[in-house]
Amino acid sequence: MMEKRKKIMLPETEIPTKWYNVVAEMKHKPQPMINPGTKEPLKPEDLYPLFAEELARQELNETDAWIDIPEEVRDKYKIYRPTPLVRAYGLEKALDTPAHIYFKNESVSPVGSHKLNSALPQAYYNKIDGTTNLTTETGAGQWGTALSFAAKTFGLELAVYMVKISYEQKPYRRSLMQTWGAQVIASPSMSTKAGRKILTDHPTYQGSLGTAISEAIELAMQTPKCKYALGSVLNHVSLHQTIIGLEAEKQMELAGEYPDIIIACFGGGSNFSGISFPFLRHNLSGEKSTRFIAAEPASCPKLTRGHFQYDFGDETGYTPLIPMYTLGHKFAPANIHAGGLRYHGAGSIVSQLLKDKQIEAVDIDQLDSFEAGILFARTEGIVPAPESNHAIAATIREALKAKEEGTKKTILFNLSGHGLIDMSAYDQYLAGDLINYSLSDEDIKKSLEAE
Amino acid sequence: MMEKRKKIMLPETEIPTKWYNVVAEMKHKPQPMINPGTKEPLKPEDLYPLFAEELARQELNETDAWIDIPEEVRDKYKIYRPTPLVRAYGLEKALDTPAHIYFKNESVSPVGSHKLNSALPQAYYNKIDGTTNLTTETGAGQWGTALSFAAKTFGLELAVYMVKISYEQKPYRRSLMQTWGAQVIASPSMSTKAGRKILTDHPTYQGSLGTAISEAIELAMQTPKCKYALGSVLNHVSLHQTIIGLEAEKQMELAGEYPDIIIACFGGGSNFSGISFPFLRHNLSGEKSTRFIAAEPASCPKLTRGHFQYDFGDETGYTPLIPMYTLGHKFAPANIHAGGLRYHGAGSIVSQLLKDKQIEAVDIDQLDSFEAGILFARTEGIVPAPESNHAIAATIREALKAKEEGTKKTILFNLSGHGLIDMSAYDQYLAGDLINYSLSDEDIKKSLEAE
Repeated sequence: MMEKRKKIMLPETEIPTKWYNVVAEMKHKPQPMINPGTKEPLKPEDLYPLFAEELARQELNETDAWIDIPEEVRDKYKIYRPTPLVRAYGLEKALDTPAHIYFKNESVSPVGSHKLNSALPQAYYNKIDGTTNLTTETGAGQWGTALSFAAKTFGLELAVYMVKISYEQKPYRRSLMQTWGAQVIASPSMSTKAGRKILTDHPTYQGSLGTAISEAIELAMQTPKCKYALGSVLNHVSLHQTIIGLEAEKQMELAGEYPDIIIACFGGGSNFSGISFPFLRHNLSGEKSTRFIAAEPASCPKLTRGHFQYDFGDETGYTPLIPMYTLGHKFAPANIHAGGLRYHGAGSIVSQLLKDKQIEAVDIDQLDSFEAGILFARTEGIVPAPESNHAIAATIREALKAKEEGTKKTILFNLSGHGLIDMSAYDQYLAGDLINYSLSDEDIKKSLEAE
Repeated sequence: MMEKRKKIMLPETEIPTKWYNVVAEMKHKPQPMINPGTKEPLKPEDLYPLFAEELARQELNETDAWIDIPEEVRDKYKIYRPTPLVRAYGLEKALDTPAHIYFKNESVSPVGSHKLNSALPQAYYNKIDGTTNLTTETGAGQWGTALSFAAKTFGLELAVYMVKISYEQKPYRRSLMQTWGAQVIASPSMSTKAGRKILTDHPTYQGSLGTAISEAIELAMQTPKCKYALGSVLNHVSLHQTIIGLEAEKQMELAGEYPDIIIACFGGGSNFSGISFPFLRHNLSGEKSTRFIAAEPASCPKLTRGHFQYDFGDETGYTPLIPMYTLGHKFAPANIHAGGLRYHGAGSIVSQLLKDKQIEAVDIDQLDSFEAGILFARTEGIVPAPESNHAIAATIREALKAKEEGTKKTILFNLSGHGLIDMSAYDQYLAGDLINYSLSDEDIKKSLEAE
C-alpha cells in the first residue's frame, strides 16, 4: 500500500535557477511609476542612488519573463530551500471538509519567514556593487531579521528602523537582529528629519511601515556607500519571492494535483506575489482558471476598501509615485499584531492585477485570524505568524464553503512564517485581551485626502 | 559538475520503523534500578501506576535490540521527520578547519527541538492505555511544549510543572504550551506536598527539574486515569530518541562519510543517547571506533565531576533508585539559561557507558557556550537553543584541534533545538550580563551528602 505522504519535498538540485517576472507576460502592464521630481516615468537610473543597479533594473524590467538567480544566492538558498509543501490532513479533518488543503511551509527558513528569499539577493547585489552599509525598515520584524542574516552572510553592515509598536511588542525580534549583528532603532526616531517631524506633530505616535521607510531612505541617502533595501511592495521583491510558487508548482505536480484556489496574506504583497505569480502565468495563457485570494487585515483594507491611484510608498514622500490600491500614505493603521500587514498600499503589479480582476481580496478580523491560527497550531503543530493567520482564516472559509457545496476543491496557501517570536500576541489572544478594529468610510476618505 | 550539497534529506518513507535499544547489545548491562520500597530490582509492574504499560516494559527491556514504532506515531513523525542532516560549510570556513562538520537539525520540529520524538509515543501509548490526563515537568520548556502538542494530538489533557526560573525567564514558552492547550504551573508550587515542603524550607527557591518532577509525579499518583511523562533520563525516552541517530546513519552514508566524533549536549541524556546509540552499536560490535562526547554545563557537571552511585531521579525521592553519575538529588544548579541541562543526574545506560569508557564527557562554561552559539548563528543562520550551544562549543574545540593537528576529522553533532524562544538569553549575553558559575569540590561533596 502507498504510504500517505504528509510532506512533498524537493532535492536541492531542484531549487529554481531563475525567478519568474510576471510583468513580461501581462497583457495590461502596470502603469509606470513616476519620478516625483521630473513627473516622468521612472528610469532605472533614478533608482541607482537608493538601490543596487541590478535591483533597479529588475524593478523596471517588463520584457524578460525569466531572470537568472546568481549561483552565490542559490548556494545560500540551500540553507533552507526547497521548503516543504505540506498536506494539512490535520486541519482538513478538524474542518471535516472534502477540500484538499496544502501549504507551502516558508516558516522553515532560519529567520522564520519567506523574507529571506529576497534579503539574500538584495544583500548579494549590493555587495557586488560595492555597497558597505544597508538601511531598512521592519514592521513585525520578519524582514529586519531576514536582512540581518543576509547582510551578515555577504559581509554588509545594517541599520534597521523598526516600527515602534513592534519594537515594544516584540523584544525577541530586536535580540534576533542583534544576534546577527544588525543595529536596531525604534521608529519614529530622532535620528532623521522624517522621524523628528512626526514626533513633533504626534509625540506618542507608535510608528508605521510608511514612517520607518522614510527614515531608512533618508539615512541611506545621506551616507556614502550606503543603500536602502525594502522587504515588500516593489517589483524586484516580488520577483525574488516567485521562488516560492516555482517550487510549489513542481511539488503540486508531484502530489498529482493542481490548485483551484491559492491564498496568501497581504501586507505589501511579496509573499502573495511569490506563491501566486508562477501559477498565474497559466491563467494568463488561458490554460488554467485558478482563483487567487489576497487576505488582508480588516484594519488595513487597501485592497478591499482602498482607492486605485498614484501614491507614495512611504509616509514622508521620498519614494517614486506608485500606481497602487492605497489608503493614503499618511494612513495610520491600528496596532494589530500582524505588524507585517500594517502597510497602506499594494505593489503596482498586484494593484493592476486586482484592477483587471485577475486576483481577489478578502479582509479578515484580528480575532478571526487568531482563532484560525490556534486551530492550525493544534492540528498541524506549527504556530503560525500573526500575518499568516490571515491566510489560514481565508483558507478555512474556502474549505468550509467547499464542504457546504459538497465539492472537492484543492486549496494551496502560503504559510509565510511561524509565530514563535510572536507568542505575546497569542498570550493576549488567549487571555481575551485582543480586539477587532473597525474603520469607517469617513476614516478612509480622510486618510486618502491627507497630504 | 556535482553541486555541493548543503543538506542531506531523506524521504518520509525512510523514517525508521523501529527504535534501537542499545541495552540489548551492551556487554555490561546497567545495574538494575531499585524499587526503594522493596529494595528489589525494579519490575515493569512497579512502574504501571506512573507510566503507560508499554512504556514501563520498554524501560526495562534488556533483550530486544529493535522495538517497533507504532504506525500512528510514525504517521505523526511525518509532520517534521526525517530531519535534515546539514554540512556546516559556513562554520568550517569561519574556523578554517580541515574537519568536516555535520549537524543533525532537530530544530525543524514544530516545537523547536528533538523532544517531540519521545512526546508523541508517550502520548500515544498513554492514549491506548485509557489515560485521560498527563502530568510532566519542564526545565527550559522544550519538553513541556513538545508534550503539549503531543497530548493535544492524541486527545489528552496535560498539566506541566515548569521550573520557576524558566517560567520567569521564558514567558513565550508558557504561551506556547497554552496555545497547544496545556495548563502550566510554576514549580515549586503550593499545589503539591513536595512543592509546599521546599517553599517552606526555602521560600525564594527558583526551582529545579528535580523538584518539578516530584510535583508532577505526586499529582499523577493522586489523580485517577492520570499518568506521568518524563522527557529525558529514562531508558524508554532514550529509546525513542534513537530515531535521530538512525536517520543520521543513513544520511551520513549518503554523504559518503562516517563520523569520527559524535557530540551532543547533555542534560538527562536523551538527545545525546538519541544521536549516539545507533552509531555506538558499531563500536560495540568492534567495527568502528567513533568517539562520543557528551557536552555538559560546567555549572552542572555530573558526568565530569559527579559520583557514580544509586540516587533518586527527583528531589523528593518519589522515583526508583537509579544507578547514575550524579551530583546528588538535592543538588540546586545555578540559574544558567540552558535550563534543559540543569539536572543532577544521568540516565543509567549512559552512566554505565561512561563508567566503561565507551563515551566521554566535557564541561562547557556558559559564556563559551553563547560565544559558540553566536558564531553558529552568524555562519549557519540558525540561532541555537542555549542547550545546543554546549554541543557547538565542544564541536568547535574538536574542529580547532583537528586544525592544529592538521588532520581531517568528520564531526557530527546534534542540533537539539533552536533558540528563538530563548532570545532573552542572547540579549543578556550580548549586553554582557551573563556570567560563568563555578562549583567547588566542597559544594559537590555537600550536595552528594544531602538527604
